[in-house]
Amino acid sequence: MPLRNTRQLLVAAGDTVTGASAELPPWVGRHRRCSRRGLAAAGTAHKQDSLLRLCQERHFISGGAPSHTSLLQGGHSLGPLGVELRRNLLSQWWNSVVLHREQVLAIDTALQLPNPSIAPEAPLLAICTQHLLGLPPQQRGTCLGGPVGKCGVLRHELLYGALMEYVPSMELLNKKLPFGLAEIGKCFHPIPEVANEGTIPPRIGERTVASLVWFISPKSSGQWQDYWLRHRLQWWQKFAQSPSGFGCREIEQEGQGGKISVIQYEFPWGRETIETLCSMDDSALLQMHSGSSTKLQARDGRKWVVPHVLWVSGDLDRGLLAYLSDALQQTEGPPVRGRYQQREVLKLHPTLAPIKVAVDMGKGPTGELRLVCQGLSTELREHGVYVWPGYQESLQGSLEQLYTKYDQMGVLFTVLVSEATLENGLLQARSRDTALKETVHVSKLKDFLLTYIAAATHL
Amino acid sequence: MPLRNTRQLLVAAGDTVTGASAELPPWVGRHRRCSRRGLAAAGTAHKQDSLLRLCQERHFISGGAPSHTSLLQGGHSLGPLGVELRRNLLSQWWNSVVLHREQVLAIDTALQLPNPSIAPEAPLLAICTQHLLGLPPQQRGTCLGGPVGKCGVLRHELLYGALMEYVPSMELLNKKLPFGLAEIGKCFHPIPEVANEGTIPPRIGERTVASLVWFISPKSSGQWQDYWLRHRLQWWQKFAQSPSGFGCREIEQEGQGGKISVIQYEFPWGRETIETLCSMDDSALLQMHSGSSTKLQARDGRKWVVPHVLWVSGDLDRGLLAYLSDALQQTEGPPVRGRYQQREVLKLHPTLAPIKVAVDMGKGPTGELRLVCQGLSTELREHGVYVWPGYQESLQGSLEQLYTKYDQMGVLFTVLVSEATLENGLLQARSRDTALKETVHVSKLKDFLLTYIAAATHL
Repeated sequence: MPLRNTRQLLVAAGDTVTGASAELPPWVGRHRRCSRRGLAAAGTAHKQDSLLRLCQERHFISGGAPSHTSLLQGGHSLGPLGVELRRNLLSQWWNSVVLHREQVLAIDTALQLPNPSIAPEAPLLAICTQHLLGLPPQQRGTCLGGPVGKCGVLRHELLYGALMEYVPSMELLNKKLPFGLAEIGKCFHPIPEVANEGTIPPRIGERTVASLVWFISPKSSGQWQDYWLRHRLQWWQKFAQSPSGFGCREIEQEGQGGKISVIQYEFPWGRETIETLCSMDDSALLQMHSGSSTKLQARDGRKWVVPHVLWVSGDLDRGLLAYLSDALQQTEGPPVRGRYQQREVLKLHPTLAPIKVAVDMGKGPTGELRLVCQGLSTELREHGVYVWPGYQESLQGSLEQLYTKYDQMGVLFTVLVSEATLENGLLQARSRDTALKETVHVSKLKDFLLTYIAAATHL
Repeated sequence: MPLRNTRQLLVAAGDTVTGASAELPPWVGRHRRCSRRGLAAAGTAHKQDSLLRLCQERHFISGGAPSHTSLLQGGHSLGPLGVELRRNLLSQWWNSVVLHREQVLAIDTALQLPNPSIAPEAPLLAICTQHLLGLPPQQRGTCLGGPVGKCGVLRHELLYGALMEYVPSMELLNKKLPFGLAEIGKCFHPIPEVANEGTIPPRIGERTVASLVWFISPKSSGQWQDYWLRHRLQWWQKFAQSPSGFGCREIEQEGQGGKISVIQYEFPWGRETIETLCSMDDSALLQMHSGSSTKLQARDGRKWVVPHVLWVSGDLDRGLLAYLSDALQQTEGPPVRGRYQQREVLKLHPTLAPIKVAVDMGKGPTGELRLVCQGLSTELREHGVYVWPGYQESLQGSLEQLYTKYDQMGVLFTVLVSEATLENGLLQARSRDTALKETVHVSKLKDFLLTYIAAATHL
């Protein structure tokens, strides 16, 4: 039971997210041309290089040297700082879409689709079951020649899972419209053959998707499309240094019933889609649940209807990359030995920054200072503040080198525990954003940091 | 480059977690026999039935009627309450293992293993790439007869990813032992053929795994095994009503170098492993990174060594089931129309309970009460308290029926907004655990709940 009318829509929407289609839709081509003109400017190319280098050097991305294509194709894992950054991003998404809304339920559906025919564009896989594991590896290949009906399919979108969970969820929520089903999870997409050449086994791309499937009465469909587009755009802009880097546009689908809007970010190499909003009529549910439409009906006031569907799907790995690009600021730093240095600061939003504070040792008796650092770190971590244990590193360079490193890691504050701390309890806290140093009492540091982060969150 | 010495260890450990091996190791057999004796007791069988029914009816589990076998095989998705419960469980695991520890880094590795030969027991899959998507479905099957070298493999454990990330992580942490790499993610396992019979396509099992790979100096290996086993067992027990339901045991591996301990929970149908601790020598890293061992060396004080590995891997879906089983209490309730009723309460730990409070309407002017309920719900949700919007339901039964439902959902408190609230701001908050009602002022409810949850967390 394919989603007939919506399939073309989904393929187009999917392409905007995965960027991995063989034939890119025309509007993608337009951006590509824009971006080439953009790259001519040396500043943009320089920023792109800096971004990619910094992602790798500062452990946001793991694996070999990244290119912007390999990043977008989902060919890289995240490094430890990238994982923390994404955790923070996921948590903000969850709060905004699920926790703060009564009508949204969380779901968690299988990565393998139950029926290959519901998503013909998903990456096919043939699954070798138990009995083959006893065979030597070279004989296992023979199992794979079976009929295609026996092949499993890995999901490429979270839409299908939500449509499958519609009935029990609607019942749990008293059959009242509107309501939504939210899920964050991994999705898979094929990687273009040229990028996979010579790779054995061929790789499939993976990405972290945050999806809300919003069930609505047919007559309110347009209003909800506007509401969610505005809401999601504001959400992306809320954590940005330059909110204007995020924008939206509508995609025209000639001769098709649905409507697609996309939220895009202006990377140094051109605009890329980070979120898709797709409006679908009742065929989405009807085709997924073939048979009686009675069990699909929900209440819109006093009327019973089969709801329309608004599907909001964001690629959080790409969103993460957008925020890294947005946060990277390059300015001329103070001269070192007469030469001006470029200063790179990753001004990630305080709620997103993976490391909130680095605790380092200044001059003084090492054993005692280490104890203070440890105590401080433990206290902060117990209050949910992610601390970088700089005091554990034995090979320390100059303070300036330390600040440079932490600025590139996006560390909000660097705290220096020194001999003075042992005498009067005072610490020096240096801010990433202002490069200014404040004096804070050791007993007040936790509240100082928590207040700073909370203030940034509620701006 | 297979992990030669450790592979048997891993297969055995994997079986204890997936419960999906064709030939169960002898100690599993012993438990099965125990559990059959146990089932003879009618009380245990009754509890098992109640647990499975409640999991489905109260939306902890999604999909058709579960059996304990189908649950353990990972054949069910979670329902909305199950997803929230697991979110809370994951968050506690993360705090305990990652956030509260300076030497642990978070990683996030690909679901597809880069090289099938590193884990020959993982579920094989053949991936059909891009060019096949243009073919009609019936022709796609022909692609699958290729050589096995071209087949991708889905991970069945998180160990491999962590071993691959060892070198960059060690460098980030100044090459100092001990340190750990933590990851939470989905893993796959084959489902026994008998359970898959007639299913097209054949299903693979999915489970949520939380893994810590801890790199240590060879001489401290035994101490760390003891430390982590004690630590993890205490963690599981911390959230339990009956901590003695969780226990650990050691698995003897004849003629093999490693050591395996498991943490188990006593389900109504018998003991099941929920976490595995596996001690491995330096061959784990040496086999994964063939070639020079110099780049693998880390500092143990002043000596440089290739570390041993302690691998702690928990099945959080099974852990969730253990907590549901632990939380279910059946007592005789007050008589209704002269007949004694059985009262079922799901006494989930306050930090784990998916819904902290249900807000319902008592008697009074509906419009005004609804506004108070909405305001209360919004305030609580903004402070991270998950609220059930009971006031939205139009068909309400008696208060007793409502309490019965919420007790089965594990809702900590039921708050009743009534005419009195409009007059003097006072609410009635009924506790799940004591069934007693307290009067709380509407302005103090948030602090009342947050204090209650925080107190339970720090016990």
